[in-house]
Amino acid sequence: MKTQLKGDRVLAEKEAVAEFYKTGYFGRPKGEGLELSLVEAAFLLSRGKLEIELEGTMLDFRYFFEQASLRQPNFELKYIVYKDLKERGYYVQPSAADFRVYPRGSHPGKSAARIFVHVQSERQLLPVKLLQDSVISAENVHKQFILAVVDEESDLTFYEVKTAVPKGEMTEPYPAIKTDATFLEDRVIAWDAQASETLYKRGFYGKMLDSERLQLSLVESLYLFSRGIITVRDRKGKVFSFDEFIEKASEIESFFLRKYSAYKNLRDSGHVVKTGFKFGTNFRVYRKVESIEKIPHSEYLVNAIPADFEFRLSVMSGAVRLANSVRKKMLFAVEKDEEIEYLDISRTKM
Amino acid sequence: MKTQLKGDRVLAEKEAVAEFYKTGYFGRPKGEGLELSLVEAAFLLSRGKLEIELEGTMLDFRYFFEQASLRQPNFELKYIVYKDLKERGYYVQPSAADFRVYPRGSHPGKSAARIFVHVQSERQLLPVKLLQDSVISAENVHKQFILAVVDEESDLTFYEVKTAVPKGEMTEPYPAIKTDATFLEDRVIAWDAQASETLYKRGFYGKMLDSERLQLSLVESLYLFSRGIITVRDRKGKVFSFDEFIEKASEIESFFLRKYSAYKNLRDSGHVVKTGFKFGTNFRVYRKVESIEKIPHSEYLVNAIPADFEFRLSVMSGAVRLANSVRKKMLFAVEKDEEIEYLDISRTKM
Repeated sequence: MKTQLKGDRVLAEKEAVAEFYKTGYFGRPKGEGLELSLVEAAFLLSRGKLEIELEGTMLDFRYFFEQASLRQPNFELKYIVYKDLKERGYYVQPSAADFRVYPRGSHPGKSAARIFVHVQSERQLLPVKLLQDSVISAENVHKQFILAVVDEESDLTFYEVKTAVPKGEMTEPYPAIKTDATFLEDRVIAWDAQASETLYKRGFYGKMLDSERLQLSLVESLYLFSRGIITVRDRKGKVFSFDEFIEKASEIESFFLRKYSAYKNLRDSGHVVKTGFKFGTNFRVYRKVESIEKIPHSEYLVNAIPADFEFRLSVMSGAVRLANSVRKKMLFAVEKDEEIEYLDISRTKM
Repeated sequence: MKTQLKGDRVLAEKEAVAEFYKTGYFGRPKGEGLELSLVEAAFLLSRGKLEIELEGTMLDFRYFFEQASLRQPNFELKYIVYKDLKERGYYVQPSAADFRVYPRGSHPGKSAARIFVHVQSERQLLPVKLLQDSVISAENVHKQFILAVVDEESDLTFYEVKTAVPKGEMTEPYPAIKTDATFLEDRVIAWDAQASETLYKRGFYGKMLDSERLQLSLVESLYLFSRGIITVRDRKGKVFSFDEFIEKASEIESFFLRKYSAYKNLRDSGHVVKTGFKFGTNFRVYRKVESIEKIPHSEYLVNAIPADFEFRLSVMSGAVRLANSVRKKMLFAVEKDEEIEYLDISRTKM
């Protein structure tokens, strides 16, 4: 069947409606004929289902592909994803969110689309704002949001992205005691043996320096300090104000306050929060810890990121892969004004 | 036993030589007496083995610890590592590279130290230049180099760092053919079916777009281009010069040339090199691939970094952990003038 390349569309005559639209759900009827997107046309062309003319000349696959690449940004990426989804047996329609995908066994007209697929090159930075907006748009209409990342070798990786509201089960975020601590060079030590034991064994704070003294991280210290549990002094005995503590901590750790916001939010919502250093993340998070002797598996790895963060996708890929390999969820805690919004990103198969 | 805090040393009388030096290898004899470093003194103090005076006042552990932290940069970090190593039963001596550690069952005087331990806070950036210099210094005197990273919660992770010269077993880095390819938006496609198959199946380049056409990544393309295997044209048919290709590729991919240098070095040394996107690294590397149908396990994950790179240790930690979890070595390819130098970083237990 002969068709015409016009701008970034391929136009087919009336008979295409029956052959492509009614049987395969390709294209959109327009007037009497059918309008195909460039990816749909390339797919049908590669299968010998149609011929494409440009100003009277028949285009071979190479020439059409080069033309399509010139006429539509991200054409190659979209083609790779479209072809992959079609070959997996899905009905796929181009849409504002790149593609709408129908449930297996279903098709346009039979049921609604189930998935919005957003196509992304490994090389493009992905603003978290854009990702959040897209995920929320999808969730508002009860769709699953899938990020399809095309890497430099044109391999595809699919990520499911969801909003999340993590909820822990710890009823007492900190034990009600009062004790004294020193801000040393870049960590804090509580000196009293009994207070140290209580904070460590009941609150799951810090790490014992020895049998009597407790080392606290900076976020732990500020959290306990802000609750009036510890008093913090400098190495000469002078008591810190809240602002002085924040100032010193921020000198030691860039983005201290951002990390602290996520830490506070997670502790306040009933979690036990420890460093994720060994996993390359800010935190590892437990929904419930009953006893320090029997620390369970942690459920989440969490990275705190600002609202204007842009994902480098290879970095995101590594983080999600590592989280998966240790059977944890990878959450990104996005700092937005005074709130924290979470994105749960996991690898998925289509 | 009474000792005196003087500057960043603790000085003990003659009897300490017998009690601490000759039996436990603590400190260094000086004149008639013994000189202890602050970490050695803090360790002995915490065990009640000595008393420390400052200007006539006896110091308790807290006061001594605060003083030591004021007097020596990184005192807390060093103490955490020293204490950990001592408790594992090693003989440890302070040295220029932070600590010298003796083999298990041995001690100073009996054999030489076996390990140089460098202490690092999670929070300090680690310049790769410093790391390379330290590793080479250690290797020059046949010592193992261990990086002891203290995280914000004072937990310790040990990394063994070695220089490496990876060597593959592929005898033919590329098949001797000639074919035509187009530089599309951000990837390259070879159009000829037979050439595509040869490059894919014999050279292990690219990924088939369909049964006839081969998609090549930018580094693969430049490598094949520079060997005269492919001619690269733009989407209008104009042939690229080598410089034009590099210019366009560098616009698409920041640090393209750095990645290419590592790619070229690995291919030239007999490896098959593919993207490491799924692992969050630049490359995954095979020492030998016999057939495209039976791709073996890849041996290395490789990140290309510049000579002035500074490691963020949580990022390094994540990369090494992920490599370990998929049973691969994590190599960092450091670009130095025209050469590539490799560092092999792995987690280790002490």
